[in-house]
Amino acid sequence: MTKNFDRTSLESLLLKRFFYAPSFGPYGGVAGLYDYGPAGCALQSNILDIWRQHFVMEEDMLELDCTMLTPYDVLKTSGHVDKFADYMVKDTKNGEIFRADHLVKNVLKKRLEDDDLLKSGNAPAQGKGKNKKQPTPLSEETRKEYEDVLEQLDNYDGKGLDGLIQKFNITSPEAGNPVSECALFNLMFETQIGPTGALKGFLRPETAQGQFLNFKRLLEYNTGSMPFASAQIGKSFRNEISPRQGLLRVREFTMAEIEHFVDPQNKNHHRFDEVKDVECVFYPATNQMEGKGTITTTIGNAVESGMVNNQTLGYFIARIYLFLTKIGIKHEKLRFRQHMANEMAHYACDCWDAEILNSYGWIECVGCADRSAFDLTVHQKKTGEKLVVQEALPEPIIRDRWVIEINKPKFGPAFKKNVRFVQAYFDDMLADPTVSYPKTTKDSEKLWNEEKIMEFKKKLEEGNGSCNITCSDGNEYTITSDMVAVNKINEKINVREYIPNVIEPSFGIGRIFYSLIEHSYWVREGDEQRAVLSFPACVAPIKCLLTPISHQDEFVPILKDIATKLRAHKISNRVDDSSNTIGRRYARNDELGIPFGITLDFQTTKDNTVTLRERDSTMQIRDTIDTVVDLVDKLVQGKMEWKDVLANHKAFTSQEA
Amino acid sequence: MTKNFDRTSLESLLLKRFFYAPSFGPYGGVAGLYDYGPAGCALQSNILDIWRQHFVMEEDMLELDCTMLTPYDVLKTSGHVDKFADYMVKDTKNGEIFRADHLVKNVLKKRLEDDDLLKSGNAPAQGKGKNKKQPTPLSEETRKEYEDVLEQLDNYDGKGLDGLIQKFNITSPEAGNPVSECALFNLMFETQIGPTGALKGFLRPETAQGQFLNFKRLLEYNTGSMPFASAQIGKSFRNEISPRQGLLRVREFTMAEIEHFVDPQNKNHHRFDEVKDVECVFYPATNQMEGKGTITTTIGNAVESGMVNNQTLGYFIARIYLFLTKIGIKHEKLRFRQHMANEMAHYACDCWDAEILNSYGWIECVGCADRSAFDLTVHQKKTGEKLVVQEALPEPIIRDRWVIEINKPKFGPAFKKNVRFVQAYFDDMLADPTVSYPKTTKDSEKLWNEEKIMEFKKKLEEGNGSCNITCSDGNEYTITSDMVAVNKINEKINVREYIPNVIEPSFGIGRIFYSLIEHSYWVREGDEQRAVLSFPACVAPIKCLLTPISHQDEFVPILKDIATKLRAHKISNRVDDSSNTIGRRYARNDELGIPFGITLDFQTTKDNTVTLRERDSTMQIRDTIDTVVDLVDKLVQGKMEWKDVLANHKAFTSQEA
Repeated sequence: MTKNFDRTSLESLLLKRFFYAPSFGPYGGVAGLYDYGPAGCALQSNILDIWRQHFVMEEDMLELDCTMLTPYDVLKTSGHVDKFADYMVKDTKNGEIFRADHLVKNVLKKRLEDDDLLKSGNAPAQGKGKNKKQPTPLSEETRKEYEDVLEQLDNYDGKGLDGLIQKFNITSPEAGNPVSECALFNLMFETQIGPTGALKGFLRPETAQGQFLNFKRLLEYNTGSMPFASAQIGKSFRNEISPRQGLLRVREFTMAEIEHFVDPQNKNHHRFDEVKDVECVFYPATNQMEGKGTITTTIGNAVESGMVNNQTLGYFIARIYLFLTKIGIKHEKLRFRQHMANEMAHYACDCWDAEILNSYGWIECVGCADRSAFDLTVHQKKTGEKLVVQEALPEPIIRDRWVIEINKPKFGPAFKKNVRFVQAYFDDMLADPTVSYPKTTKDSEKLWNEEKIMEFKKKLEEGNGSCNITCSDGNEYTITSDMVAVNKINEKINVREYIPNVIEPSFGIGRIFYSLIEHSYWVREGDEQRAVLSFPACVAPIKCLLTPISHQDEFVPILKDIATKLRAHKISNRVDDSSNTIGRRYARNDELGIPFGITLDFQTTKDNTVTLRERDSTMQIRDTIDTVVDLVDKLVQGKMEWKDVLANHKAFTSQEA
Repeated sequence: MTKNFDRTSLESLLLKRFFYAPSFGPYGGVAGLYDYGPAGCALQSNILDIWRQHFVMEEDMLELDCTMLTPYDVLKTSGHVDKFADYMVKDTKNGEIFRADHLVKNVLKKRLEDDDLLKSGNAPAQGKGKNKKQPTPLSEETRKEYEDVLEQLDNYDGKGLDGLIQKFNITSPEAGNPVSECALFNLMFETQIGPTGALKGFLRPETAQGQFLNFKRLLEYNTGSMPFASAQIGKSFRNEISPRQGLLRVREFTMAEIEHFVDPQNKNHHRFDEVKDVECVFYPATNQMEGKGTITTTIGNAVESGMVNNQTLGYFIARIYLFLTKIGIKHEKLRFRQHMANEMAHYACDCWDAEILNSYGWIECVGCADRSAFDLTVHQKKTGEKLVVQEALPEPIIRDRWVIEINKPKFGPAFKKNVRFVQAYFDDMLADPTVSYPKTTKDSEKLWNEEKIMEFKKKLEEGNGSCNITCSDGNEYTITSDMVAVNKINEKINVREYIPNVIEPSFGIGRIFYSLIEHSYWVREGDEQRAVLSFPACVAPIKCLLTPISHQDEFVPILKDIATKLRAHKISNRVDDSSNTIGRRYARNDELGIPFGITLDFQTTKDNTVTLRERDSTMQIRDTIDTVVDLVDKLVQGKMEWKDVLANHKAFTSQEA
């Protein structure tokens, strides 16, 4: 982003060079849906390749490809059916719909800005709409109130937002009409799986659930050893209420998520030492609350001081930092901000976001959350399938435990059709009554609430082996000790069983993609302003431009030959033999961010030499075709830098046309 | 597939080694949805990498990544809302749903098989269900009738299928209940985009539409030059009525599609010569109708003889063949079958399927269709956006053309609120009344039906510049020549404008993936039967196994060192240092299809040498770590074969434990 960054110019470049464009253009597009064109698709695919190398390959993560269609039950259990929602309000006259918190934010921000202009004597001319008024100056008190609300906006629920809308007389911005009360809108896309209409499903809102539900298979694939991580790259969906801000808020997006499964009693990381000296900018929750700034320090210090909770979380923060800067995100526009308690997702117990500064502000691009054992626990409870790690104990534990044991042959006939009410009475004595054990689990294997059991035992003893209980149907039933026994069992425990915790680095690829473009964009000064996208070679959509000095038939076989040679090295290239001047062609391909350019001229046909141009400096050198192809290969692979090329070649200045 | 291929054994291997598994396992799974585990995910991703190299990189195709969410209008226009459907019937008692044609097929096939058994004296024992009867022998006439129906099943519509079900007394197979009449079920998953409920959308049934709708941008990106191809890898969806057959019929699947845009007047391909000698097996429509067999010949002959319509279609058939055999599909289990007229998709005018033989029969895995100008034409008609190529003519064409020109200032006031009926009368004189031109298009730019115009002109002249017309509201209106003029315009045409044709190779990656696994599967004879997946190294999910002869601490740093070296060459590897015997570990990793294995033994700690094992032959050689890593790199890259290794190394026989 240059000093005089102009987003409109950048956006028109991105459209013109087809990095991305609104989907279904001929049909007028759909808000929040974008297609990636050849340049954008290659850039995204290079980012993902490096991601895979950096995370999956480097750490032997277990990559998955799970379905996006997800049945209702799974997302009900995970909490998304109930909690993955935003508040919306409706313009009561024209029906336009707004996300409630965004409406409040935009209106109050606008009022503060208008007030600034008014007080500086630059108030805008009278508005156009009949409902627009010339702004009146705001009192210091009102300003303070607005600023406080904006700071705390995440803390308001539906009723709270209704209150703000009423209190500050917030109307729909364009039309000026009153808006309705807040209603919750679930952000998942719903559909029906199969022809019966009986199986409701959603498009996944995150790739994580598929990874959790495969935990057992993954652990087995990893021959039972912990810790380990799974990973998944794929699309997720979010039915945004009214998407704006280009690629930053879309309805269908690529995510790359890692679920690192770890022993809750040991969150150290065996490779932490390799990253402990990496320096990042941190913005902890306490600093945000106290209005203090950021802290720059090493990961080692951040973990040691307790600011970052544990080594594994710290390790991933460092690895995220290394990944982002490797692909071209600027160090000075990258910080790690800790979530405050009120903004944490329903499943997270701690979370640090990698935020990248772009023209929209500091944008959350990677979340690094400690989801604790939340997901595995709720799925285990719901399905009864054990999602646990079993670890041989160095020494067995021997202990006594009280259990209820129901004698089915006596119990069933005694209560006949009411047996379910009596059974429910005893199920309520389980340590966790919400767990559904598989039918084959014996009573003695279940975990019971010892306090409740002992109470029942006392009652039974007081009645000499018989007592009355009141069940949920309101009736009394008589229980005798031959139906239900309270027994002490002696257990020898050889295995420690635990539900692992999950550390989840979760990457929003589209947001990283867009930020990277902004960070790479600048305008060359000169006779005419020419835009350049200075992508690092490793992510550049196309690595090498091939262009003849002029449009002559004799260059065609040589171009083809060089293209074949580059392809053999898997170097993507683009031939531009259009009739534009060579300068215009360089400019056009600088807009695609192509780092290197090979140019053929008439000298080429005589001695088989070509020039090699570097995008950012526009400097050129000259050498034989084979040497130049070899140089490009080394440059693209990062085995050499441009300055190394210059060390062995003198700069070439004028092309023989 | 070995002689005694056992699908159950293979399936259990695939589950155990987590190639893929039913999604949402703990919730009991959902039919037609599968997750790919680490081994499957890597295999799929290697297939796609090679696909991208072979097609996209090699031919400079323009890759796209379009959204899956697609609004109603797009799929209404493309024909999918009306025609992408299957017939289903319902068990009238238990509600079970069947795809009608599959039900008829399965029941009749079963009856023929039972009859075969009966006649060979091997009739099965009495059935279990109360509705099952001991089969009675079928007459030769009935057998012939069944066989004819099975052969022609694709020709029956809903009424036809109802007729078959009634005639042959077909009931639901398990329960034996009668089934309902056929109903059409659209196979697209439906959802709502945005919060208003006003925008209906679907999950795309193919990746093609996104490519068509970006045609204009793609052509521009390609600096206007033709022909060119776009490509897309991504998920598509099909709400199958009752999915069976594992990965062959699923509800969410990965496709890789190419749309090659070509001048309808010239379907030659500039690289056809490179493939003309490739020999494939063809099964043309005429041979299928006449009950003849397949033809083995070169692509060159196939195109020259007219069996394959044009060079571009032929070029892609050859390229598909080369791709499939490169990844390990067996030549003798691959054929190209031409669609018969009755089975062609609604948009296709010719189609050859690459069919791969696996244990389910000959399965369509790649379609290579000529979609002609169908899609671009219908989208252009619907949206008014020109999806055409403009080509400078060598010499301009000069011609006269008759047009209607409406004089709006007179026309509008004359008919007031009835103007739309009068306007519609003239719109009906357009050359194609279904086209909607943009509002800015002048009448003189539109194409008119000259016959209709001349008729109107005559009428107007006969009435001395005035005539009555009857419009769609049933009323008569008087038109005068100052309102509507019929003019002859003289045009000089410098540009040829055409809608390109599209040749579409479309790959079902899951079907290829599964077929490849079957083709790679065999069982080693020996003391115990051990399964092997003999993937070519280029697609093998993991390239190299690292294993110490025994579980000793001193091997750990050496293993880590070799792993780092392999990683630097981007060679995926898997360490197996579990406590199983070395033989058991080799067997386990043969099941993952790992082509090479490096084994550390006590000799290693003395002289830094290791052994290298080849999966299929189980032969080993011994050399230093660095040499072996280098050998693996060359083997994986295809720069060397195992026999070249043996030429320079003597076989190593016994490990020093």
